[in-house]
Amino acid sequence: MRLALQLAELGRGFTRPNPMVGSVIVRNGRIVGVGYHKMAGLPHAERVALADSGERARGGTIYVTLEPCVHYGRTPPCADAIIEAGLKRAVIATLDPNPIVHGKGVKKLRDAGLDVTVGVLEQEAIELNEVFFKFMRTHKPFVALKLAMTLDGFIADSTGKSKWISNNASRRYVHKLRGEFDVIAVGVGTVIADDPMLNARDFYSPFQPHRLILDSSLRIPEDSKVVATAYEIPTIVVTTKSTIRPMREKAERLRKSGVTVWAVDSDENGLVDIEKLLEHAAGENIQSILFEGGSRVAGRLIRLGIIDKLYIFSSNRILGDGIAPFGGIKRAMDDAMDGFVLKHIEEFDGDVLKVYSKGG
Amino acid sequence: MRLALQLAELGRGFTRPNPMVGSVIVRNGRIVGVGYHKMAGLPHAERVALADSGERARGGTIYVTLEPCVHYGRTPPCADAIIEAGLKRAVIATLDPNPIVHGKGVKKLRDAGLDVTVGVLEQEAIELNEVFFKFMRTHKPFVALKLAMTLDGFIADSTGKSKWISNNASRRYVHKLRGEFDVIAVGVGTVIADDPMLNARDFYSPFQPHRLILDSSLRIPEDSKVVATAYEIPTIVVTTKSTIRPMREKAERLRKSGVTVWAVDSDENGLVDIEKLLEHAAGENIQSILFEGGSRVAGRLIRLGIIDKLYIFSSNRILGDGIAPFGGIKRAMDDAMDGFVLKHIEEFDGDVLKVYSKGG
Repeated sequence: MRLALQLAELGRGFTRPNPMVGSVIVRNGRIVGVGYHKMAGLPHAERVALADSGERARGGTIYVTLEPCVHYGRTPPCADAIIEAGLKRAVIATLDPNPIVHGKGVKKLRDAGLDVTVGVLEQEAIELNEVFFKFMRTHKPFVALKLAMTLDGFIADSTGKSKWISNNASRRYVHKLRGEFDVIAVGVGTVIADDPMLNARDFYSPFQPHRLILDSSLRIPEDSKVVATAYEIPTIVVTTKSTIRPMREKAERLRKSGVTVWAVDSDENGLVDIEKLLEHAAGENIQSILFEGGSRVAGRLIRLGIIDKLYIFSSNRILGDGIAPFGGIKRAMDDAMDGFVLKHIEEFDGDVLKVYSKGG
Repeated sequence: MRLALQLAELGRGFTRPNPMVGSVIVRNGRIVGVGYHKMAGLPHAERVALADSGERARGGTIYVTLEPCVHYGRTPPCADAIIEAGLKRAVIATLDPNPIVHGKGVKKLRDAGLDVTVGVLEQEAIELNEVFFKFMRTHKPFVALKLAMTLDGFIADSTGKSKWISNNASRRYVHKLRGEFDVIAVGVGTVIADDPMLNARDFYSPFQPHRLILDSSLRIPEDSKVVATAYEIPTIVVTTKSTIRPMREKAERLRKSGVTVWAVDSDENGLVDIEKLLEHAAGENIQSILFEGGSRVAGRLIRLGIIDKLYIFSSNRILGDGIAPFGGIKRAMDDAMDGFVLKHIEEFDGDVLKVYSKGG
């Protein structure tokens, strides 16, 4: 199963909107077939492993990181293929959270006489597909926040300048990370200050994430790069219903440039209600959003408690004073927020990446 | 030599004021003896390895991480012992920076007919004893700074409270770290705010570091723990020459409590001149100082560019706003200080320790 999880991981960034899945077929103590799901539309992991093992699968055990499907999607159901191949036993890491599959794959295999075990390395299998599980279970997008801090904890100098805190190796990794998300989001302040492209470069990725700009007052410059390239990379500008009324003309011009403009409810401060925005995004089948700042947006996400994963790069640069990561928050030590759990640390050529997940 | 360096490391915190040294004796491709220097006053690594190998050393090669000594200290010269044992070859990582040994050990061995190689894993051997090398080469103490930051980069909340940013595992490691330094130093603000003991607990260590309080205005509370325990653990209060004149009575009371009071020159802000303080400390044979805050002291050390090593713990706590690590500094991004090089990252139960060294 450990190998099946490693195989599944090979599909990272490529399988969307499907989950990553890996499968290993064993007969008489030997591995006779391996497979993983490479991309939506291509065969599922189980079918790849079955094709790899051929007749040698008969009488064997299939290990698979997610419950085999029973529905006709772009490919026929895997449960049927497993039964037809004459396997005796199936070991499944976890049930499929998708209600049209959940438990039905296991039932079908058992009804066909297979010995089925569920729950082997289950936590690892769920974490592997944390985006897919969150979206299927809650129908809300998985929310990540990435920030780059100086050695002394600032995300920009006191004038707002943040180029560059992190080094080339870190920034290269961010492009890979972007390719794993459906949407990259920033506050309009970042567009005004940095005029970024917000695309995924340097790494082979079948998807280019869409871009989303939080813009409560519809301040986005019409000559910004994200607007200018909106026909190449889908770009969403999110403002409030009350803002858009007097600014219909600007909204219309943005739409003509290829920008999608969403108007959602305001929160108590007259800003875009982020929870409403996430609901709307889920309705558009957006499974995951990577926020990249700035301080005001990050502070609001932290206060709302809706960050599932936090990527913090820290470099060796020292400013002394500057802009702190989470604007609009000021807690006493006894009241500090402790909601994140460290999952991973990694070095990028002298920068350090810490990855946190929302605590249990 | 790699093994000799690992053996040397076993003496960390115990050999002071001597360097850590490890030695391996090889004959005909087999290791016949190993040794490391355990504690000042006990035999040097070479003698331990020679005793371990006995007659089997004859005709063999000795690997040693530092040039063998030629002087009579608390133990007789190792170079003589190596010659007497009949070794044919010596491989030495690096020369001894101590002027009374430097090059003489190698010369003595060569004069006795041994084949001597110097410079194998030299950089590692110098880093192993970075404190000893700095002190011998510059006659200045090795300066380290330790700080604990929240996830968002603060060393205290906005009221100055810092208990507790880091977790038990991190704080336990700090006690081990303290045991490796001659002196633990803080600003008097930390004594007033936290009344710490500043000792090395929980780990077996033959030395208790001395305590040093930077106290330009001699504000230290006479009932603080460091004053109350000054007869048990040597405690130095450092103030300025101009402060001590009108405050002779307080200084006298502190001295009667067992506190050592140093009065050094002031800098341009009327504060203790830290470089003068380090000179004075070197004169007292203090080889290493670990500063532990607060923000004002840390900022001054950064500005002076005198930090050799930086230990930064970061936890998962979030404050939003608070006290930044380096007080009195405000740089623009283009003028950020980049002087530190990441050497090591380590996890302590969800906290992350980053260790930086001064760049070349």
